[in-house]
Amino acid sequence: MRIGIIGAGQLGQMLGLAARRMGITCRFLDPSEAPPAAAVGEVIRRPFGDSAALAELADSCDVVTYEFENVPVEALLGIADRVPVFPPPEALRSAQDRLSEKRLFDELQIPLPAYRAVDSLDDLHGAVKSIGLPLVLKTRRFGYDGKGQCVVNAPDDIDDAWRKLAGTDLIAEEWLDFDFEVSVIGVRSAGGESATYPLTHNEHKDGILRRSRAPVEAPGFAEKAESYMKALLDRLDYVGVLALELFVVGDRLLANEFAPRVHNSGHWTIEGAETSQFENHVRAITGQAPGATACRGHSGMLNLIGEIPHGAESLQVPGCWLHDYGKSPREGRKLGHITVVAESADERDERLRQIEAALAKM
Amino acid sequence: MRIGIIGAGQLGQMLGLAARRMGITCRFLDPSEAPPAAAVGEVIRRPFGDSAALAELADSCDVVTYEFENVPVEALLGIADRVPVFPPPEALRSAQDRLSEKRLFDELQIPLPAYRAVDSLDDLHGAVKSIGLPLVLKTRRFGYDGKGQCVVNAPDDIDDAWRKLAGTDLIAEEWLDFDFEVSVIGVRSAGGESATYPLTHNEHKDGILRRSRAPVEAPGFAEKAESYMKALLDRLDYVGVLALELFVVGDRLLANEFAPRVHNSGHWTIEGAETSQFENHVRAITGQAPGATACRGHSGMLNLIGEIPHGAESLQVPGCWLHDYGKSPREGRKLGHITVVAESADERDERLRQIEAALAKM
Repeated sequence: MRIGIIGAGQLGQMLGLAARRMGITCRFLDPSEAPPAAAVGEVIRRPFGDSAALAELADSCDVVTYEFENVPVEALLGIADRVPVFPPPEALRSAQDRLSEKRLFDELQIPLPAYRAVDSLDDLHGAVKSIGLPLVLKTRRFGYDGKGQCVVNAPDDIDDAWRKLAGTDLIAEEWLDFDFEVSVIGVRSAGGESATYPLTHNEHKDGILRRSRAPVEAPGFAEKAESYMKALLDRLDYVGVLALELFVVGDRLLANEFAPRVHNSGHWTIEGAETSQFENHVRAITGQAPGATACRGHSGMLNLIGEIPHGAESLQVPGCWLHDYGKSPREGRKLGHITVVAESADERDERLRQIEAALAKM
Repeated sequence: MRIGIIGAGQLGQMLGLAARRMGITCRFLDPSEAPPAAAVGEVIRRPFGDSAALAELADSCDVVTYEFENVPVEALLGIADRVPVFPPPEALRSAQDRLSEKRLFDELQIPLPAYRAVDSLDDLHGAVKSIGLPLVLKTRRFGYDGKGQCVVNAPDDIDDAWRKLAGTDLIAEEWLDFDFEVSVIGVRSAGGESATYPLTHNEHKDGILRRSRAPVEAPGFAEKAESYMKALLDRLDYVGVLALELFVVGDRLLANEFAPRVHNSGHWTIEGAETSQFENHVRAITGQAPGATACRGHSGMLNLIGEIPHGAESLQVPGCWLHDYGKSPREGRKLGHITVVAESADERDERLRQIEAALAKM
């Protein structure tokens, strides 16, 4: 059994490590010089849209998947007659466009913040009038980690925001003064069996995920999130792992966006769940039923941005695992993460505090 | 940081997977056609004793280790002036010869079964007289998984046993009607910090390990085993992971043999301990202190011999992980293992029973 993976970043590497343990080989397509996943499988070093390279990947693998959202949907459709492609390209198409993503939430009656398509400065003024201020103006496509966004706080900001982002399809979204952010990760097999991981609490800084903790002790939210996930998985006839990000505002749970792939907020599942999101993605796309998604204790995950604390004091904390993606250091770059697992939420938080203090001293 | 590993079998692969997660690259030396570790690093396809290949490995790595015991000690000593070699070659020398191994146990006052060196048929008769029958005649070197052994039950077996094994250095050992077998795995850093995993209960069939369970609920034995491990690690000025196999006979704990490497009876530590034996070996040989060795729940490990149950019912048991080494199937060959972790020993045993029943139906 061989899996073809479009993209050879850290998500590809972690998929490759999980697959390797299960006796499955991975082959990657990625134009980068030295991508992380090169350590766990052969990489075809060609652009993601290169049709000859895609055909080579398709013809040499039993199934093709992708590890990031900016793969051209047409590239996937171009090989879908030669090899099964999971998650379904149509799920990727929805996820790539914030407007169709939000319309899908609406269709499935998943609550979400107010939004308006913005194709002109007039549209933006209209959005300000109907949604109110502040609002967030975003590109509909190809935004990630907070890039391609602009907050409109006051009427005076409207022109600036327009000037900054105009030229591509935009969307205006209600600015939410949310209490906290959570995500839910689900998996569905080709046979329609699905499973959902416990809810994860996420903290971002400068648009980049910094810290995740699971499980979130909020039974009402967990049930709601699970039902939203189930609706999405079934509606998309989904195969693989899907991540849904949500905002908590008072007693409301509002959908933000979904990613048709393994997700940074699920990295804790490697050590903190019965089956990791990576193993479950591999299981789903290779025709196996999902493995158990229950927590093993209380988990925390810290992203390592810009530098890796090799041999640091931080790693002497018990129940802590360093993941180093093998990327060259660069400011603001996700280079790795640390997972912490403990028997209680308090102990988990205490260990996270110890590690964060050690990292701050570096 | 790059580690050179002599041997690219499944132990090399699991070391490579642990190292990769920690951002460390491995390079292997192994003459096999398609060794398991080729999936996680480059393999120099030359014989273990090839001095040019060893020099190439030494010069391209920061530290060199080995994943099996039949590496020529002289080969290690030949590169020890170019690169640190861990575990120390002298530890390997002791482990390669059952006689020096047993003398080391004696020196450290670690109890062990009666034994006698056998260099002649007269020696064998002398051993039968002093040890009594039955006894086990073994080659002093290069035995593994029950190979190179012969049980002498009655005086009539003496000549047959001699004919079967003569021609190499032999040792006669007391035949123990032991209650059960256990192993203890320890790790020591270059700085002299050491740690010991909880005791593991092992079951063999036809000389091959079939099932391991940990922790063993036997506090008295655990303390003794830990003190024996500590004595061995310190006496050998050891760096890396070491495994010690012991017999339990009534209230006695008797040393059988030790292996200067990661060990099959420690595979459960990947999912069942705070730090796996593979990570701890990597930590020790790269100058880091050992990670925590406490259990995460109650673990069991089943070796998969001759075939791999892909997609089998067995894998639907919760808290179970398949490890497939990617080797071609052959009767009697270790192809992988399944780990089970549960919150109680009873639940663990029940899950093992379910998996064994499913495997038996294959």
